[in-house]
Amino acid sequence: MYPNILRHPGPTPIPKKVELAMAQNMISHRTEEFVKLYRDTTERVKTVFGTKQDILLLPSGGTAALEAAVVNTVSPGDEVVVITVGAFGDYFVSICEKYGLTVHKLAKSWGEACTKEDLIDFLKPLSSVKAVFATYNETSTGILNPISELAEVVRNHSDALFIVDGVSCIGGAPAEMDEWGIDILVTGSQKAMMLPPGLALLAVSERAWKVIEANSTTAYYLNLLSYRDWASKGMTPNTPAISLIMGLSAVCDLIEEEGGFSKTIERHEVMKNMVRESMKALSFGLLTNDQYASPTITAICAPEGLDLPAYLGHLKKKYHLDFAGGLGHLQGKIFRFGHMGYCFPSDILQAVSLMEAGLQDFGYQFEPGAGVNAAQKVFLSSLRK
Amino acid sequence: MYPNILRHPGPTPIPKKVELAMAQNMISHRTEEFVKLYRDTTERVKTVFGTKQDILLLPSGGTAALEAAVVNTVSPGDEVVVITVGAFGDYFVSICEKYGLTVHKLAKSWGEACTKEDLIDFLKPLSSVKAVFATYNETSTGILNPISELAEVVRNHSDALFIVDGVSCIGGAPAEMDEWGIDILVTGSQKAMMLPPGLALLAVSERAWKVIEANSTTAYYLNLLSYRDWASKGMTPNTPAISLIMGLSAVCDLIEEEGGFSKTIERHEVMKNMVRESMKALSFGLLTNDQYASPTITAICAPEGLDLPAYLGHLKKKYHLDFAGGLGHLQGKIFRFGHMGYCFPSDILQAVSLMEAGLQDFGYQFEPGAGVNAAQKVFLSSLRK
Repeated sequence: MYPNILRHPGPTPIPKKVELAMAQNMISHRTEEFVKLYRDTTERVKTVFGTKQDILLLPSGGTAALEAAVVNTVSPGDEVVVITVGAFGDYFVSICEKYGLTVHKLAKSWGEACTKEDLIDFLKPLSSVKAVFATYNETSTGILNPISELAEVVRNHSDALFIVDGVSCIGGAPAEMDEWGIDILVTGSQKAMMLPPGLALLAVSERAWKVIEANSTTAYYLNLLSYRDWASKGMTPNTPAISLIMGLSAVCDLIEEEGGFSKTIERHEVMKNMVRESMKALSFGLLTNDQYASPTITAICAPEGLDLPAYLGHLKKKYHLDFAGGLGHLQGKIFRFGHMGYCFPSDILQAVSLMEAGLQDFGYQFEPGAGVNAAQKVFLSSLRK
Repeated sequence: MYPNILRHPGPTPIPKKVELAMAQNMISHRTEEFVKLYRDTTERVKTVFGTKQDILLLPSGGTAALEAAVVNTVSPGDEVVVITVGAFGDYFVSICEKYGLTVHKLAKSWGEACTKEDLIDFLKPLSSVKAVFATYNETSTGILNPISELAEVVRNHSDALFIVDGVSCIGGAPAEMDEWGIDILVTGSQKAMMLPPGLALLAVSERAWKVIEANSTTAYYLNLLSYRDWASKGMTPNTPAISLIMGLSAVCDLIEEEGGFSKTIERHEVMKNMVRESMKALSFGLLTNDQYASPTITAICAPEGLDLPAYLGHLKKKYHLDFAGGLGHLQGKIFRFGHMGYCFPSDILQAVSLMEAGLQDFGYQFEPGAGVNAAQKVFLSSLRK
């Protein structure tokens, strides 16, 4: 009866318009109707990537598209750099290691970003790196790496490809793939893109296509050349995730209805600030500093004396408010508040209100309303602009 | 306004109940709700595979699961046999060749099945084959290979694994994976399983798990051991296609509502016979003989003097009846009538009626009603049983 209030880093809530679009009559992927849907949709979604390149649609999770970015560009034994600032950076390391690459791991403490200076220093002694992999938004810590700056460092260093995991922020964070010089940008459907899981989106620079053409991967399903060939006909090599593509078309409508993608990004920025200010007002700690704070997810530290697992369980059971816990060594120490995709300032006010209710149940000492009030201030100030 | 009548080999129409199930509120894949959904659904769907093994759910098309069956069991350079009786057998050959296997190709003419005798003769001189790959239902020709007999031949020959592509029939054709001795059975969501594309289902025998454990694949997304590990916790290694799993649960309901899976198979058998008898009555040829005819798709030859591409275009444009054309060298010579998944005898009557209307528009000489009448006879006789 009570709806679950899903404030996870993904999967995220699905707009009604998208649900209905996905329930349209099924069509074949080898028909004119599909070609039209595919061409229109991949064209419209380019704005979210900031690219003029084709957006390829893989019927898979984001992980598969990350693996595609690896196995189509480099070969076992090649040297690569992987920037990792948390669990999903480590995940990218695992993909590369599994594939037999020689991985130079630029690791930062969880909660920190990789800065331009970090990368300059790290790359200095490395002269034969084929690719640099980075996470744009680290879901485990709520860090948004300064990806445009990192791209510039890679460009200035060598002709290594710069390959970016944008899974948990593309659709809610700025992206200018072409301008910044990202060679492959990957995202998944179930985060800021407002869709169920099962569709990966990926774009490739002209430079990277040349590298891919010279590569001899044995991958079949994840063969990007095959996706490119079929995309030129408005189709995909295998049966695509048709209902999700119908949904993606509706997502493009919603972004237009919001007033264009820059408005969508602004909304995420407002929600980020609402969450951060309200947490400060409730004396909850923030894992990251403001400079590199993610617009889609915030990692929040439990205040002294609050039994976090019990509190999160209580919020879910009594108030149907569903946050994600911490990963790895942060389990039990932080929780993650997702504010991306189909999420609005009103949802932040709701979640913070329920958090306050739960804190009162726990006898936590605070001024009731302080968190909500702080969030309201940010919201109201954004409306005055 | 007019609904498209999708009589393709897949994607196929989606039941309303499944559409609605997929539009439920999104949940996280790391919650108790998901674990319950995953465990219940994978348990219930075992009947469709005829197995006691776990059913693994990959967020991907069937092709990815076929590739998973290859890259997890054999290694580049290994000898394998691929049985191919059409375009999708050839597809399996391509996956194996791309992976660097030494492929012994047992090819039959399009429209023929691979018989027990064919396989016995073919395997005789081959002593170091690691796996035999076969298509259960060849979508391009409407052949249902005698898969239980082929499994027996492989078992009697050696300890090679027997790996089966069941993509276009599982859910509409009998399958007794354990009893027949199939080592890996793969299917996709968008054919007889009544779901949109984007979910692959796969089961692995105990024998095959031992081989997989000893294999050192570099595949990450398609790593089956990782799926097995997570399945033991009621989860998947990456974000799964949650909405499709919600839909799969509804599919299991529908199969129960029909009276159990044996009833579902009977319905497909009736539809197959309705299509075949009606085509004979209209003097259309059938590409396959009755013995190996597919219960899910029928390939139909254009009669002398009928301009098939024009006729199919006309049916789609005027009557919104959407058949699939022929593949490869059969393009323009046959069309394929899909009768699987959410398809009923009434749908066959409808499609044959519209075909007759189209034939009258084309001045084709036949007795109007003959096709429908032949289909009715099969239908009525099935109801009397």
